[in-house]
Amino acid sequence: MGAKVSPLAPNVFHQPPALPGARLAARACGVRYQGRTDVMLLELAPGSTIAGVLTRSLTASAPVDLCRRHLKGGKARAILVNAGNANAFTGKLGVDAAQRCVKAAAAALKCKTSEIYVASTGVIGEPLNDKKITDNLPALIRELKADAWDDGARAIMTTDTFPKMATRSARIGGTEVTINGIAKGSGMIAPDMATMLAFVVTDAKIPAPILQALLRKGADKSFNCITVDSDTSTSDTLLLAATGQGPKHKKPASAADPILKEFRAALDSLLTDLAVQVVQDGEGAEKLITIDVSGAASANAARRIGLAIANSPLVKTAIAGEDANWGRIVMAVGKSGEKADRDRLSISIGGVEITRNGQRRADYDEAPVADHIKTRDIRIAVDVGVGRGSARVWTCDLTHRYIEINADYRS
Amino acid sequence: MGAKVSPLAPNVFHQPPALPGARLAARACGVRYQGRTDVMLLELAPGSTIAGVLTRSLTASAPVDLCRRHLKGGKARAILVNAGNANAFTGKLGVDAAQRCVKAAAAALKCKTSEIYVASTGVIGEPLNDKKITDNLPALIRELKADAWDDGARAIMTTDTFPKMATRSARIGGTEVTINGIAKGSGMIAPDMATMLAFVVTDAKIPAPILQALLRKGADKSFNCITVDSDTSTSDTLLLAATGQGPKHKKPASAADPILKEFRAALDSLLTDLAVQVVQDGEGAEKLITIDVSGAASANAARRIGLAIANSPLVKTAIAGEDANWGRIVMAVGKSGEKADRDRLSISIGGVEITRNGQRRADYDEAPVADHIKTRDIRIAVDVGVGRGSARVWTCDLTHRYIEINADYRS
Repeated sequence: MGAKVSPLAPNVFHQPPALPGARLAARACGVRYQGRTDVMLLELAPGSTIAGVLTRSLTASAPVDLCRRHLKGGKARAILVNAGNANAFTGKLGVDAAQRCVKAAAAALKCKTSEIYVASTGVIGEPLNDKKITDNLPALIRELKADAWDDGARAIMTTDTFPKMATRSARIGGTEVTINGIAKGSGMIAPDMATMLAFVVTDAKIPAPILQALLRKGADKSFNCITVDSDTSTSDTLLLAATGQGPKHKKPASAADPILKEFRAALDSLLTDLAVQVVQDGEGAEKLITIDVSGAASANAARRIGLAIANSPLVKTAIAGEDANWGRIVMAVGKSGEKADRDRLSISIGGVEITRNGQRRADYDEAPVADHIKTRDIRIAVDVGVGRGSARVWTCDLTHRYIEINADYRS
Repeated sequence: MGAKVSPLAPNVFHQPPALPGARLAARACGVRYQGRTDVMLLELAPGSTIAGVLTRSLTASAPVDLCRRHLKGGKARAILVNAGNANAFTGKLGVDAAQRCVKAAAAALKCKTSEIYVASTGVIGEPLNDKKITDNLPALIRELKADAWDDGARAIMTTDTFPKMATRSARIGGTEVTINGIAKGSGMIAPDMATMLAFVVTDAKIPAPILQALLRKGADKSFNCITVDSDTSTSDTLLLAATGQGPKHKKPASAADPILKEFRAALDSLLTDLAVQVVQDGEGAEKLITIDVSGAASANAARRIGLAIANSPLVKTAIAGEDANWGRIVMAVGKSGEKADRDRLSISIGGVEITRNGQRRADYDEAPVADHIKTRDIRIAVDVGVGRGSARVWTCDLTHRYIEINADYRS
C-alpha cells in the first residue's frame, strides 16, 4: 500500500524457482486499488491434488465456503485470488460473484468447477464486482509463466509492505522434490483456527488425504501460532497443492510414512517461514517477538498461554516502548485461563532469567535485558511449572503505526 | 499521571455524602509516586459485613489471596489500599508485606486480622515497601473523616485521569438507606472474571451471604461487561461492605427478598455507573462505545460476542479514526466462537440499520452513520439471529495515547 517496507522484512528474498506443473500470472484489474496488480491466477497441471485449512470464523467469506466444498473433491486446476475486496458478508450477491469467477475459470481452463479455488482479501461487506476479474481471465491465462511467483505474491498484498514467499526442497525416497509458497497478511492476523491467505505448491505426487494430514499438522505449528492483533479474518485460507509433475518418486502410503520424513520437515519449515514473514510485516511492526512456553499441561495449553502473552496490548506496547516490563507477562499468563503455577513461574527475556519460584530473582540485573529489548528480535521464554507441554508463538509489537494504518484503512 | 483529564469524564461529579459507619483518610506515603496521596484507609463500624468479587487470574496478587481468605469470615473493620505497587508476583516477600499491613491495621483498630482487607494497584513484580504504609497508619486513623470519599477515590488512582465515585439511595421496607462507591481503573481492564479496584459501602444492615449474592449478580452486569484493552489485572478487587449504621430497616431474608428490590436496582445502577466511569477513563479513550448484543443463544453468549467486538483492535481503531468500518464488527462476531447466523446478522450504528439478512442493505446511506461516529458516544447494536440472549458491553476506542501511556509506564 505504498508504505515504506517493514523494518523486519527479510534482507534477502529467495525467489521460488519454477516448479513443474505450476504457472502464475498477475494483472491490474482495478478491483479496488489503482496502478498495481490485484488479481493472481495460479494454474496447476491436470491431476493436481489439493488440501486446505480454512478459517473457522462464523462469518466466513463466500470464497471460503466455496473452497470448503471444493476441497472434498481433493482435485485442483487453478487458484484465483483478488486483493482489495474480501467478498465477505456480501450475502447472495457475494456467493453469485464467487461462483461466476469459478465458472469462468473452469470454462477457460476446460475443467470442472470443483477444481477451481477462489480467495478474496480486503474490505469486508462491499459487493465484489466480479466482472473486473472475469474480463481479465483470458489475458491472465495467456500470460501464465512458471517463474512468476514473485508477481503472484505481490498481487495478493493489501496492507502488506513486502511480498511473502519461500521455497524448500526435500527428498522423497531419494528423489528431490520442490515446495514453493506465497502468503499475504499484515493485519487482522490471529489465525487461531486456520491462517491468512497462503498458497503452497509442490511438484511431488501426493494423494489429497495425505496432503491434508500434512497440512493440518504443519499449520498448527506455524500459522496457528502467530498473531498480529488478535483479530481473526473472515477470509483465512491456506491451500497446499501437489502437481505430481516433478521427478518420479516412491508413492507414500500415509502422512506418517517414513519416506515423507524429509518432506514433512521441509513443509513445516516453509510454513513457519511464511507465517513468520506475515508477523514481520505485521501492521506497524518494529520488533519481532518470539515466545517459547514450556512446562504447560499440554502443547495446546502452551500455545494458548503463548497467544495470551502475544495478544496482550500491554505486553506489546511495553516492547514497542523498549521497556522490559516483565510484570505484564505475569499478568498475561494469569489471564490465559490455562493451568500455571504462579509460585514456580519462570520468565526470561533475551536469555536472562528474571524470575524464579514466583518472584524476581534477588540478583536480577536489568541492564542486559534493557539492551536486548532495544534490538529488533525479542526472545521471551516462560516456564509455567506444571507439565511438559511446550509451544513457540510469534507476534510483533504494537506501535503508533498500527493505529495510523487502521484508523484510516477504508479512506 | 498528571495527564489531562479524559474527554469522556463526567461533567458533574456527585460527591458521595457521609455514610453512617464509614470514614476515610488518604495520605501521601511515597510508596512509588511523589507529591500525591497514594494510600487510602476506609474504616467501617464494628459489626460491618462484607462481600467481595476477586480476579480469577492465576497470577493473582498477595492482597487478592488475603482478601479471598478473609471474605470467608464475612466481617470487616477496614479496607487499606495503596497505589503505585500491585504487590503481585512478589512471592513470600509480598505475602509477608501484606500480612504486616493487616496486622498493623488490626492492632491499631483493635480488631481481628480477618476483618482487615488490603488491595494494591500499580507495577507488578516489585517488592512492596510496606513500612511506608504502616508508618502512616496512626496518622491515617487520626485523620479519618466521614466526608472524605473524594480523597479516597483520588488516593487509589494510577493512570486514571479523574477519581471515580457514585452514590445512590434506596428504600428497604420503607426505610431509606445509602450506597456509596469509589473505583479506580484505566488500563489492564478486562475484568471478565471480577473487576478492578472498587469499594462500595452501604449503611444498610445486610448479612454477608446476602451481600455476596447481590454483589456477584451486580458485578456480572457491570464490571464483568467492560473492557479497555482485553488485559485482566492481577489485582481486580470489588468489595461491598454494609455498616448497618443507617436508619433501622426490616431484615431481608435472602438476596431475592422483595424488600430488597429497590436496593438491588440501586446497587446495580451504582456498579454500572462506576464500571462505565472506568471505561470513560480508559487509557487514551476519546470515545465511549456501548454495544448491545441481542438474538444470542444465552446472555453469556451475548456478553462474549459483545466483548469480542469490544476487544477487537480493528474495531477500536476504526472508531478512533471515525471510520464506520462495520465489516470489522462482522469479523469480530465471527471470531467470538459463539453461535451466530451469518445470514441473519443485523448491525446498527447510531440507530441506523446497516445490514439485514447477512448483507448490506441496498438502501444503506452512510451519511448519518458517519455523523454519529464523529460524536463521543458511540452506539452499536448487533442481533445475531439465533436466540433470545442479550447483553450490554462497554469499551472505548484505541488511540495513539494508549500506546504513549503504555510504552512508557514504568519510566
